[in-house]
Amino acid sequence: MKEVTYGLDIGGTNSVIGIVDRKGHILAEDTVSTRKFPVVEDFVEACFSIMQKLEKSLNNNVKIVGIGIGAPDGNYYNGTIEYAPNLLWEGIIPITNLFKRYFDVPVVLTNDANAAAMGEMIFGGARGMKHFIEYTLGTGLGSGIVINGEILYGHTGFAGEIGHIIMKPGGRDCGCGRQGCLENYGSATGLVRTMHELLGKRREKSKLRKIPCEELDSKKIFDAAKEGDKIALEAFDETAKILALSMANAVAFSSPEAIFVFGGLANAGDLLLKPTRKYLEETLQIIFKGTVKLLASEIPESKGAVMGASALVWNEILNK
Amino acid sequence: MKEVTYGLDIGGTNSVIGIVDRKGHILAEDTVSTRKFPVVEDFVEACFSIMQKLEKSLNNNVKIVGIGIGAPDGNYYNGTIEYAPNLLWEGIIPITNLFKRYFDVPVVLTNDANAAAMGEMIFGGARGMKHFIEYTLGTGLGSGIVINGEILYGHTGFAGEIGHIIMKPGGRDCGCGRQGCLENYGSATGLVRTMHELLGKRREKSKLRKIPCEELDSKKIFDAAKEGDKIALEAFDETAKILALSMANAVAFSSPEAIFVFGGLANAGDLLLKPTRKYLEETLQIIFKGTVKLLASEIPESKGAVMGASALVWNEILNK
Repeated sequence: MKEVTYGLDIGGTNSVIGIVDRKGHILAEDTVSTRKFPVVEDFVEACFSIMQKLEKSLNNNVKIVGIGIGAPDGNYYNGTIEYAPNLLWEGIIPITNLFKRYFDVPVVLTNDANAAAMGEMIFGGARGMKHFIEYTLGTGLGSGIVINGEILYGHTGFAGEIGHIIMKPGGRDCGCGRQGCLENYGSATGLVRTMHELLGKRREKSKLRKIPCEELDSKKIFDAAKEGDKIALEAFDETAKILALSMANAVAFSSPEAIFVFGGLANAGDLLLKPTRKYLEETLQIIFKGTVKLLASEIPESKGAVMGASALVWNEILNK
Repeated sequence: MKEVTYGLDIGGTNSVIGIVDRKGHILAEDTVSTRKFPVVEDFVEACFSIMQKLEKSLNNNVKIVGIGIGAPDGNYYNGTIEYAPNLLWEGIIPITNLFKRYFDVPVVLTNDANAAAMGEMIFGGARGMKHFIEYTLGTGLGSGIVINGEILYGHTGFAGEIGHIIMKPGGRDCGCGRQGCLENYGSATGLVRTMHELLGKRREKSKLRKIPCEELDSKKIFDAAKEGDKIALEAFDETAKILALSMANAVAFSSPEAIFVFGGLANAGDLLLKPTRKYLEETLQIIFKGTVKLLASEIPESKGAVMGASALVWNEILNK
């Protein structure tokens, strides 16, 4: 029987469960609505019945050796989801213990951005690296910081919040209640906000001026930039500049071998990575110049969450 | 025979050598001129003869179990001092190997700020802490970051350069060739530069207006602030604000249990610590509020360098 793990990615709307082998291949996968279960115990039970179906679909020819869970506000130390504003479950949810009622295997939890970093380390471009950082550029900006081959959790379990480093005091309002945090500039949403500002600031023509404010998204800005739209190109350039500054500062802090970029906005590829790389190299302190690679994640975006969650527990099993 | 270590603090002008016991007591100490030895081998030989004298002064009743060295631009991984602009020795200096010619014990090197953090962990207020950061506020601003009970060195050995995190792009010129790094605002020199700016900006009277520009130092600003000088008080407040912002950002990164403040400017005590603590707590992201203590170092400033250097090697010996 093949040893496999479960990777469970808990999202605000849907959650995805996959059976993942040691090489990161997803052998079977299904989705469960998170919103449908206001009581977390019911959600876990629903997951369990889906898991049984998934195992059956593989002729029960697998041995589950662990469960990895990526969830917003997941605390690695306690195995709890704590006050997650995007989930219906209020307060502190002992999610790993709930799964242990059904399975006698290690169950490991962390947040989505740390899971992405772990996926990179176990299955992706960071294999063999001891020091790297992974930026997840989606609606928000998450980060996972790896030090000496381990995810950095810090004293509280919540370390690695690069998206909430204040880049511009008094700047753009942030969902965290403060102002000027990186995620309001460097994420997909940040790009859109930058585009709005530039549409006000510049006089050049732009296709995007015809699009209602609320419908402007990073994909439309990407397409316009590809067609040479000057303001869209400037929006990418501004985004690259602030991402590069935050990366140069992160290098001064932890001196990683590489910084990986993952998630929706990372799909812009060279349009974002090329200028970011240029600004990063320009901005780095002399002692760090040439010491850090800026790389696109080697994990496919659609599989990253489940692979990352699975990698979490593979990492624990392999390090035993 | 009592087991002891050497702590050697290499400075640009003078170096200090001390014999330090397991509790951090300096049993004997002497100074050697660094400037007098343009050839590093001669410096090491001079250190060796001083060391013999120090042992003699203790009736040779000690057993040397290791040598810890704190030096500018010291690389822990390689045991080398690399291109230190403040030392006469050019290029890459294999300082630990040079000492190993004389001693058959572990020799450990790092930079001064990391040594200060190690001193705090082994002998000071950070005993028992797994995650903390130490700011050394002197002419410059150094930092040592402890993660899981270990100094963070990163991929290159040069991690922990919080003083060179860019807080104000395009801001004050920095010795590193860039602009706006924290050390130009948060160090003793930064305080003086802030005072200069405020003397230009404000119209209030101040004793310090009578002092020639070049003679203004942090001690004079401290004394004026103590006497209620409004502009001097504002300079401390500005310094506290930017230190607090950098600390809040560092907490988002590594979530330490405490941040310690050491060095000349830290002697300002509550005048600096009180407002910094207030701004830090205001600035922290909600999930980190109440999780991090801001503390004065428990290591006396005059002994910190030698104790820190010694702590480096005690740490290696104890963790064997």
